[in-house]
Amino acid sequence: MTAAHAVSPNLALDEAVNRRHAAGQPLIHLGFGESRLPLPDFLAERLLAGARRTAYGPVAGAEDSRAAAAGYFTRRGLLTEAEQIVLAPGSKPLLLALMAAVDGAVVLSQPCWVTYAPQARLFGRPVLEVPIPAGCGGVPDPDLLPGALRAFRAAGGRPRMLLLTLPDNPTGTHAPPDVVRRLCEIAEAEDLLIVSDEIYRDILHDPADPYASPAEFAPERTVVTSGLSKSLALGGWRIGFARFPATAEGRALRSTVLGLASEIWSTLAGPMQEVACLALAEPPEVTAHLRASTRLHGAVADAVHRIVTQAGAVCRPPTGGFYVYPDFEPVRDVLAAKGITGSAALQEHLIDRLGVAVLGGEHLGDDPGALRFRAATSMLYGADDAERWAALRSPSPLTLPHIAETLESLRAAFTRLTS
Amino acid sequence: MTAAHAVSPNLALDEAVNRRHAAGQPLIHLGFGESRLPLPDFLAERLLAGARRTAYGPVAGAEDSRAAAAGYFTRRGLLTEAEQIVLAPGSKPLLLALMAAVDGAVVLSQPCWVTYAPQARLFGRPVLEVPIPAGCGGVPDPDLLPGALRAFRAAGGRPRMLLLTLPDNPTGTHAPPDVVRRLCEIAEAEDLLIVSDEIYRDILHDPADPYASPAEFAPERTVVTSGLSKSLALGGWRIGFARFPATAEGRALRSTVLGLASEIWSTLAGPMQEVACLALAEPPEVTAHLRASTRLHGAVADAVHRIVTQAGAVCRPPTGGFYVYPDFEPVRDVLAAKGITGSAALQEHLIDRLGVAVLGGEHLGDDPGALRFRAATSMLYGADDAERWAALRSPSPLTLPHIAETLESLRAAFTRLTS
Repeated sequence: MTAAHAVSPNLALDEAVNRRHAAGQPLIHLGFGESRLPLPDFLAERLLAGARRTAYGPVAGAEDSRAAAAGYFTRRGLLTEAEQIVLAPGSKPLLLALMAAVDGAVVLSQPCWVTYAPQARLFGRPVLEVPIPAGCGGVPDPDLLPGALRAFRAAGGRPRMLLLTLPDNPTGTHAPPDVVRRLCEIAEAEDLLIVSDEIYRDILHDPADPYASPAEFAPERTVVTSGLSKSLALGGWRIGFARFPATAEGRALRSTVLGLASEIWSTLAGPMQEVACLALAEPPEVTAHLRASTRLHGAVADAVHRIVTQAGAVCRPPTGGFYVYPDFEPVRDVLAAKGITGSAALQEHLIDRLGVAVLGGEHLGDDPGALRFRAATSMLYGADDAERWAALRSPSPLTLPHIAETLESLRAAFTRLTS
Repeated sequence: MTAAHAVSPNLALDEAVNRRHAAGQPLIHLGFGESRLPLPDFLAERLLAGARRTAYGPVAGAEDSRAAAAGYFTRRGLLTEAEQIVLAPGSKPLLLALMAAVDGAVVLSQPCWVTYAPQARLFGRPVLEVPIPAGCGGVPDPDLLPGALRAFRAAGGRPRMLLLTLPDNPTGTHAPPDVVRRLCEIAEAEDLLIVSDEIYRDILHDPADPYASPAEFAPERTVVTSGLSKSLALGGWRIGFARFPATAEGRALRSTVLGLASEIWSTLAGPMQEVACLALAEPPEVTAHLRASTRLHGAVADAVHRIVTQAGAVCRPPTGGFYVYPDFEPVRDVLAAKGITGSAALQEHLIDRLGVAVLGGEHLGDDPGALRFRAATSMLYGADDAERWAALRSPSPLTLPHIAETLESLRAAFTRLTS
C-alpha cells in the first residue's frame, strides 16, 4: 500500500542504545545531535506569555517575531527587514520547502547532515555530493566543486542549489571566510542558489574566530536558515526561521515557500513565536546564557577531540557546534585485526563492545569504507538538570567530577579500541 | 529560479479583507475557518507545565501523549493502543505525509477543504474529484463513486486513497452512518485506503445525532486524523494526531509516515504534547468547555443558515463544525442582473459591495459557475475575549446584543444581495 521509504539512520542507533539500557549496561551516548542543556526560567515564562497566541496568524509568522529575527540578522552584519523572514516549526521544514521550491539538483557536502539528501529525494531532486576540504566541513571543497559541477552538467545534471552548513554538523568546524568567498564566486559563476544552514552560528567556540555567512558575499542569492534548537537547547520546542534575499527573486522564492508552508505546516505555533520574540531580541539574559552554553560546548568538544586524537585518529579541531568527526585511518591495521574495516562495523563495535554510541560516517553520506564517525559531545554535560546547571556555571567544567569521570571512561574506551 | 506554485486562495481574500480594514469600512468576516474562542486558563497552565519538554523526543510523540490520544479514540468506540498514534504540529502535516506515503491517486469530495488537492499535487498524486450527495458534504456521493472510479481506472488512473471529512469543511454537515458504511464497502471492493479527517468530530451540534467513523466499518484500512485546532480553538498551537490501523499494513504505513515525519517536521513541540495529554484525557473542565463551545457553534451556524435560506438560497442544515455552504441557484436571475454569474463574482460582490467576506466555492474545488460559497460562522462570537466568554457562557447567545446586531447586519446584507 505504501511507497518504500527508508527510516532515519538514527532509529537503528536508538534501538541499539535502548537494548543496552534495557540490559542495564553502561553507555556513553554520543550518537544524537541534541544540546542537553537545562531550560532557563525566562524562556518558560515567555512561553506562558505566548499562550494567548491561539489564532493561526500569518503563515510567515507575526510581525513582531519576524522583526525580532530581522534584528538578529542585522546585528550580525546582514541588514534585514521583517518582510525577508519566514518562521517555521524548526529549520527542517524550511529546508524541505526550499528543496520543493527550487527545481533542479542539490549540491551537498560529503559528509553532511543526515536529512538533506532524503529531503531532496522526496521531491525528486537529484543530489551531487562533493567531498569537504581537509581543513573544515560543511562545504564542498572549492578546489573540487567546479570540476564536479562540470562533470555533473556534462552527464545531463542541472544543479540549482548549493547547501552549506556553517558551522557544520557532523564535523563541528566552520569554513573560514576566504573559503566561503570562493564558494560564493563559484555559485555566482554557476548561477546556484545558496542555502546556508546556520543553525550552529551562535555556538562558535571562539567569538574572535573569523566567521562569514555567504549572505555577506552573495546577498542576492543566499537564503539563510537557523533556529533555536541548538543554541538555546530547544530542539523540542521546534523554532526555526529563514532569511530571504531582499531582491525580486528573493521575494518570489519566499512567496513560493510561503505557498508551500501554507500546505505543509500552516505557521509556527503562536507561543513559540512569542519565545522567538524574546530570544531573537537577545536581551542580556539571553546573551549571557548563550555565552555560558558556548563555553561549555567548546570545552567538552575540545576534550573529546583530544581523546580521539590521542587514541590515534586524525580529526579537524572543533570550532563550532558540539561535534567531532574523527578518522581512524592511521590505525586501520589495528582496527582491521578486530574485524573493523568500515564505519558500520566501527559504530557497531563502539556501542556493542565499548558502550559508546556514535553515528557511523556512512549515515552522513561518507564513504562506508572510511573509519569515520560523528560524536555528538553535547550529551556529556550531566545526567540531570542539577549536573547540567553546574556544568553551565562552572569556569572549568572539565574538572567537575561527573564530567571528568565520563571523559575518563571515554578515554579508556578509545584506548581499548586502538590498542 | 523557483518552480511555479500557486499561493493559497485564502490569501487573496485576506488582501481584500485588509483593504477594507485599511479603508475603515465595516466588515463581517466569514471567510476564515478559525474558531475564535477564548483560551481557558487550564490550557495555558498546562502549556507552562510542558515547558520542561525541551528534548526532541520520539518522532511519533511521547508515550504519555500517544496514550492520551489512544484513550480519546477508545472512548469513541475505536479501541486504540498508543503504538497506533502519531502526533504532529497540526493534522495538516499528517495529511501531507499520508499523501507522500501512498503512491497513487487521491479521491476527494467536490467541494472539499482547500488544502487536500495542493498537498496531493505536491507529490505528483493525481486527484479524482467526485461530487458530494444532496444530503451532506465531506464524502463523494456513494451513488456516483463506483462509476467515477471505473471511468478513472479505464483512463489509466490508479486510485489508492479515499479522503473523507467528518464533519465537513466546507458544508458544516456530516455523512450519516449508512452513507459512511456504503463508502467503506466501496473502499473495500476497490482496495482503497480511507483517510478520515475528523478534526470537527467534537463539534457535532447535536450529541444525539448518529455519527460513525469509517474506522468502525473498515478498521483495517482507515487512518483517522484529528487535532485540537477546531474543537478547542487552538489553531495557533498546532496540535494534531492520527490513528493508524492495528494491522501489519497499518504498522507499515505508520512507519513510512514516521520516516517522512523525521524529514519534514521532526516531532510535535514538547509543550504542545503536554497540552495534548490534558486535552485528550478529557477531564471535566475540558468536556464542559467543549460542550459550551459546541452549543455556541451550533446556535450561530443555525442562525446563519436561516439568514441565507430566507434570502433565497438552498443550503444543507449544518450539523457539525462551524460552516454553512449555501447555493444561490434559486435566485440566479436576480444575481445575474447584478452581474453575478459564478462564485468568484459572488465572493467579490459580497465583500466589496456588502462587506461580507466568504470563500467562493471554486476555491474549494466546486464548479466556478455555481453560486455557492463557504461561510465560516465561528468569527461572529465577539470582537474581544470578554464578548466571546459572554457568548460561550450564555444559554441563549443569539440574544446577546453584540451577536444579535451582527446577525442583523448579515441578514440585511443578504436581503440586499437577493432583492
